Amino acid sequence: MLGSEQIEGNDMRRFVALALLPLLIGAAPPAKPKTPSEIIATAPRSDWREIAADDLLVFDFAGNRRVVMQLAPAFAPVHVANIRTLARGGWWDGAKIYRVQDNYVVQWGNNDSGKPPPKGVVAKPPAEYSRRLAGLAITPLGSPDAYAPAAGFAGGWPVAFDRRGGTANLAHCYAMVGVGRDLLPDTGTGGELYAVIGHAPRHLDRNIALVGRIVSGFEAMSSLPRGTEALGFYKDRSSDVPIVRARLAADLPAVERPRFEYLGGLSFGAYRHARANRRDDFFIRPAGGVDLCNVGVPVRAMPKP
Amino acid sequence: MLGSEQIEGNDMRRFVALALLPLLIGAAPPAKPKTPSEIIATAPRSDWREIAADDLLVFDFAGNRRVVMQLAPAFAPVHVANIRTLARGGWWDGAKIYRVQDNYVVQWGNNDSGKPPPKGVVAKPPAEYSRRLAGLAITPLGSPDAYAPAAGFAGGWPVAFDRRGGTANLAHCYAMVGVGRDLLPDTGTGGELYAVIGHAPRHLDRNIALVGRIVSGFEAMSSLPRGTEALGFYKDRSSDVPIVRARLAADLPAVERPRFEYLGGLSFGAYRHARANRRDDFFIRPAGGVDLCNVGVPVRAMPKP
Repeated sequence: MLGSEQIEGNDMRRFVALALLPLLIGAAPPAKPKTPSEIIATAPRSDWREIAADDLLVFDFAGNRRVVMQLAPAFAPVHVANIRTLARGGWWDGAKIYRVQDNYVVQWGNNDSGKPPPKGVVAKPPAEYSRRLAGLAITPLGSPDAYAPAAGFAGGWPVAFDRRGGTANLAHCYAMVGVGRDLLPDTGTGGELYAVIGHAPRHLDRNIALVGRIVSGFEAMSSLPRGTEALGFYKDRSSDVPIVRARLAADLPAVERPRFEYLGGLSFGAYRHARANRRDDFFIRPAGGVDLCNVGVPVRAMPKP
Repeated sequence: MLGSEQIEGNDMRRFVALALLPLLIGAAPPAKPKTPSEIIATAPRSDWREIAADDLLVFDFAGNRRVVMQLAPAFAPVHVANIRTLARGGWWDGAKIYRVQDNYVVQWGNNDSGKPPPKGVVAKPPAEYSRRLAGLAITPLGSPDAYAPAAGFAGGWPVAFDRRGGTANLAHCYAMVGVGRDLLPDTGTGGELYAVIGHAPRHLDRNIALVGRIVSGFEAMSSLPRGTEALGFYKDRSSDVPIVRARLAADLPAVERPRFEYLGGLSFGAYRHARANRRDDFFIRPAGGVDLCNVGVPVRAMPKP
């Protein structure tokens, strides 16, 4: 997946060069820069990158509600391999959402059910809380970050990084998914997952394995009733929300397979810039900056084949 | 309200001085610093500041659900005066929640009902989007901010500020409440309000009047079904959530009056520091920084008289 992203750093430089071009040749800059939605609407086909079917995990809930998660193998390969094995072994068929903590997380899995994990699941994956910076093509955020020396985007993911230490990590933005764990050295298998439903709890960055994000249907999770027990656990197990099944998109028949793509390339650079400098008619003072988790990488459904 | 906060700047310096004291006199620092919850649990009575009854607006919804909003007269005095007049004139009795946009806002009021505002409401308040920095005692955040030269807390509120320009503004953190408006010069009367239910949309800072925050019962708003129309408006007016009434706490009989207090003084300084350096057993890498909207000023209910 990252191979196709290697051009992003160059794209960013090309984007800046193109943006400066009118000044260099003395032409007037365009009267009205595009808004974020206009950039999405007019982005060329080539700036949209399809997400691999093996990186899409489809959860079906009670009430015909569907949530699609994108996996992040470039950041947590062992946990992601576990999650694929868990899905193929039916781990989430009959699992539950059992925790909803306001302004924090929704959590689901088999918790205290005693269900054994399928064969092939690595019981103690390594602490995939950060990775080497080398190999990632970063589009810089261009604004300061409270949690790391620098922040930006790599392969469509929000990342924080440290050039000196040579490390990078996924960030706990809204709708990002992580692996529930107990105290270390346990890192969690991936059997219990949580998704962020409030302001980014970035203090969890580099302390827990992030493995993906919800790219579709998240409202079905974020609007669930909050649990009233400590940490948002539901008081009665009858409040738990049943999960009917989870399947990798790659394992569904082609005609049923959901497809998604995210915005990259020059268009994403322009989008990030426009999000930091809102100039729609509503705005009188563009911020001139933007938080890593308030850019929102555009992801959209593609027509089925 | 701000008068009682004037000591906070000095408190912060005292806090830093006290924290350094063990190093200066060669004593070992305490083995385990307090966690955020331990700081709340052990804060002295004198560090809790009661919120004035005139600054608490109580919304009662269908289904016996109650949401309490704290007003911010130090930041938007004309809008807050309007909101008190609107409440006393019965503006929200029979109003509706008509918009719920995921990862953005819940909005309520009388929208397109044609209900006239009560007498005394200023139709075009000034643009109270920021205020003079002078007169605010700031506890600095101690971390960089993507949207302003600096950030911190004043009188229990999250603020961004610019020492050079001499201005400060409330920040669009989770549960903060702002005034819906159309295009300028309209700033909104305060009759249509919205509250943040997702990652802080800080690009709205200094573009709209923030007038307070929800301090109790917010789950009843944040977990509402998301609207399916553009911008999260409900498709059918039958989906609107009825508001039974809104009253200022000051106008309720003393025995029914909810009371709240927030954490200030030395304890809040310690709390902010602990939130930036989580050392509970769960954490292996404290961030050493924290986002303005991820500190969360502690607010709690007080016993009724």
